[in-house]
Amino acid sequence: MEQKLQELKQRLQEIYDLDHIGMLLGWDQSTYMPPGGAAARGRQMAMLAQMSQEKIIDPAVGKLLDDLQKYAESLPYDSDDASLIRVTRRDYERATKVPPEFVARLSAHQAASYQAWTQARPADDFAKVRPHLEKTLELSREFANYFPGYAHIADPLIDMADYGMKAASVRALFAQLRENLVPIVQAITSQPAADDACLKQTFPEEGQIAFSCQVVKRLGFDYERGRDDKTHHPFTTSFSVNDVRITTRVQENDLGDCLFSMIHEAGHAMYEQGVNPAYEGTPLASGTSAGVHESQSRTWENLVGRSRGFWEYFYPDLQKTFPHLKNVSLETFYRAINKVQRSLIRTDADEVTYNLHVMLRFDFELQMLEGTLAVKDLPAAWHERFEADFGLRAPDDKDGCLQDVHWFGGIVGGMFQGYTLGNLLGAQFYAAALEAHPEIPAEMKQGKFDRLHTWLKENIYTHGRKYTAPELVKRVTGSEIAIQPYIAYLRAKYDELYKI
Amino acid sequence: MEQKLQELKQRLQEIYDLDHIGMLLGWDQSTYMPPGGAAARGRQMAMLAQMSQEKIIDPAVGKLLDDLQKYAESLPYDSDDASLIRVTRRDYERATKVPPEFVARLSAHQAASYQAWTQARPADDFAKVRPHLEKTLELSREFANYFPGYAHIADPLIDMADYGMKAASVRALFAQLRENLVPIVQAITSQPAADDACLKQTFPEEGQIAFSCQVVKRLGFDYERGRDDKTHHPFTTSFSVNDVRITTRVQENDLGDCLFSMIHEAGHAMYEQGVNPAYEGTPLASGTSAGVHESQSRTWENLVGRSRGFWEYFYPDLQKTFPHLKNVSLETFYRAINKVQRSLIRTDADEVTYNLHVMLRFDFELQMLEGTLAVKDLPAAWHERFEADFGLRAPDDKDGCLQDVHWFGGIVGGMFQGYTLGNLLGAQFYAAALEAHPEIPAEMKQGKFDRLHTWLKENIYTHGRKYTAPELVKRVTGSEIAIQPYIAYLRAKYDELYKI
Repeated sequence: MEQKLQELKQRLQEIYDLDHIGMLLGWDQSTYMPPGGAAARGRQMAMLAQMSQEKIIDPAVGKLLDDLQKYAESLPYDSDDASLIRVTRRDYERATKVPPEFVARLSAHQAASYQAWTQARPADDFAKVRPHLEKTLELSREFANYFPGYAHIADPLIDMADYGMKAASVRALFAQLRENLVPIVQAITSQPAADDACLKQTFPEEGQIAFSCQVVKRLGFDYERGRDDKTHHPFTTSFSVNDVRITTRVQENDLGDCLFSMIHEAGHAMYEQGVNPAYEGTPLASGTSAGVHESQSRTWENLVGRSRGFWEYFYPDLQKTFPHLKNVSLETFYRAINKVQRSLIRTDADEVTYNLHVMLRFDFELQMLEGTLAVKDLPAAWHERFEADFGLRAPDDKDGCLQDVHWFGGIVGGMFQGYTLGNLLGAQFYAAALEAHPEIPAEMKQGKFDRLHTWLKENIYTHGRKYTAPELVKRVTGSEIAIQPYIAYLRAKYDELYKI
Repeated sequence: MEQKLQELKQRLQEIYDLDHIGMLLGWDQSTYMPPGGAAARGRQMAMLAQMSQEKIIDPAVGKLLDDLQKYAESLPYDSDDASLIRVTRRDYERATKVPPEFVARLSAHQAASYQAWTQARPADDFAKVRPHLEKTLELSREFANYFPGYAHIADPLIDMADYGMKAASVRALFAQLRENLVPIVQAITSQPAADDACLKQTFPEEGQIAFSCQVVKRLGFDYERGRDDKTHHPFTTSFSVNDVRITTRVQENDLGDCLFSMIHEAGHAMYEQGVNPAYEGTPLASGTSAGVHESQSRTWENLVGRSRGFWEYFYPDLQKTFPHLKNVSLETFYRAINKVQRSLIRTDADEVTYNLHVMLRFDFELQMLEGTLAVKDLPAAWHERFEADFGLRAPDDKDGCLQDVHWFGGIVGGMFQGYTLGNLLGAQFYAAALEAHPEIPAEMKQGKFDRLHTWLKENIYTHGRKYTAPELVKRVTGSEIAIQPYIAYLRAKYDELYKI
């Protein structure tokens, strides 16, 4: 049995390494690669994706899993070996349904589509990417159809990102959230908006990056096992448990962009850095779902990084870095970074209106997959729905349906729900952490984040994929995913600011 | 036939991509990778090396080559298809002699040895790497012994880097070179050394990098298909014909280090960027030998970059970048960058004494492989031989036998002769270029390097590996590799400076 387990681990390590090498190629593509490198890079990434797929669906893996099944059943559910076998079987069964040739075809198409989008967006040229998106939609449907028996065609795609969720369950949750959220948005946006002029001065790049580095280091991002680099659209990636990289961008006329996106990415990265090192090289060594991953980025960005206590500690340092904040009070600054407004761009949205952006995209994904919304009609549908939800209209498609990379570099389906699930889960986990350690907020004011970080590591990060998201939520909070902690958090924070 | 050729090309492209992905992993390891990434990176590189090896030795490749042999013979020798089939056969026959398990074993050992060396060298701790080097020597012998029938055990290893050369032929060439070179070194170093104090002021990093970038761009390095990054030990690498990267380092108290190493690497890179783009993804798409590669780096660094004409054009710009050179005359500067002295470190050596460093290492490689020099005796042997050759003694092993990475990250054998072959070939090719275009030196004074670059592209770079080094030298210069053009170049240049 030991020998079979070793053989399985050897095979899984090769798959893990192929996948993480592919992630290095992607990182380089988004940070340093010169324009000339694009063609070969697309080809190389497609090759690795296909090789990995071929290795996971090797019937020998299935045979090993069968041989190990009895052994797994003899172990406690949450033992490392049982978990490894269980999660591998789930991956194997999913992977064997998809032909490697499709994986390579999809990967090559995604590289081409992404390349087109990088030009089409600045040019506000939806027509240029329309054929790519139509093909992506077609491939997304093909992908879903490798998993027959679904209730909704989006189900298999949602399940890939957020195991255990389906179109129907997300819809129900989102409907409930919308009902509670819209009155809060109304209450806040009917009042005068906070003045954030203090964030819109000129802040030299070097200072922004240095300050942000210092912050994420203090929060717990480990630079011995990671680094940060500049990119256009910040993301986190990893090449092993001990090499987890964040990326950032800087706008010299907007202090918030670099800082909060870097805290956000550091949240993702601390999750990856916190996985049990014994899982390195196995399918257990990563975050368990898109939603749980996002819960961590948004916890550190918003629940921690936009809290008053956090800034009681960091604001004097920030004022030292940028002397033009000398005459801006902490209260003014705090209100500025928590300004709530209906705005065009998801990634710039405040934590209250953010979910409305997500719901719009989620609904469009379902409609495109169902065939009730054609790609050619997406730009107009976007503007119409946006106006209904936000009372705003983007002047163009650039800041309309072209704004997010997801459909142009990924697939259509399962791409967005994780953001809002993350907001909900983040609030649930944070409430559980506060219950265990009521001293967390007081310690934060002193620049101590270790208590929270350790609690998150022990309760969430270390487990990697051992528990599914639903299992993890239950284990950590005692309940299912729910909107109440998030709504309670928003109400408490914004009632103090706006009397809602 | 067309179909078989396509199948061969498809297989070769996968091998090419695996190899070049491995090079990206190596580039990242030497530029940006955080310390934590080392373990997984070594494993990932070993896996790729083994996969590539398995693919090249696939009997199906041999079968395709056999099937295509008649077709190749029906074509002119230098047609692209005939050359592809010929070069692939050479690679295939070499590769099939080496078991993939050995390739992975060697690669994993090299990663561990390299890691140990990065710590042992600063600590001046030969004992720490001694067991690694002993193992490397053992593996190098094993490697050579996969190619039985050699006259000298180093022959197969020399042949890998410089096809067509053997221990005996290199020895004969080096003996002849030494005989001509030593009197020149004697004549120069018996005179007062040039004053290079002007290079040893403080030159801020940013200015050094900006100036060096501007220089290599003007020489012809294409930043659309390449980039430069900082590292400890500069090197050039490529991930495709259209993504060729150089690296550099900066010493703020030495103006020459960044500048000349960057020109040197740009020389390697222009060679790779100049390969016929139609060869992308095939074994033809790279430089043809270590010696020819080095001929290009050293041509651009020394024959061009340390010439008076070059600086007649660039010196005013340099003075603008660094105002403390305002009162240093061009003549003083020119003499400073061409200072000749017996010194400890190969990579810092001037173009006259450089070859003595190489010969010493070449001889030690042969002796270690023969078993006439034990690894444990290397440090003492180094000091003794160095004193005999240079009249100098390094104060430690750090600047003695630990100074070069080659034996600690590569193998023992075939690692060094290419540098001196490069000096010889560079002078031969350059003489041929001047014969074809006598206007090259005059144009250089005006900052025009295109004539030389184009000639090198058309005569050398574009061919990639189509011709072996001996074929290429014959084709371009009409003769064999020879020492005379190099000696003539040195005599002309240094007689003017030192009356030798």
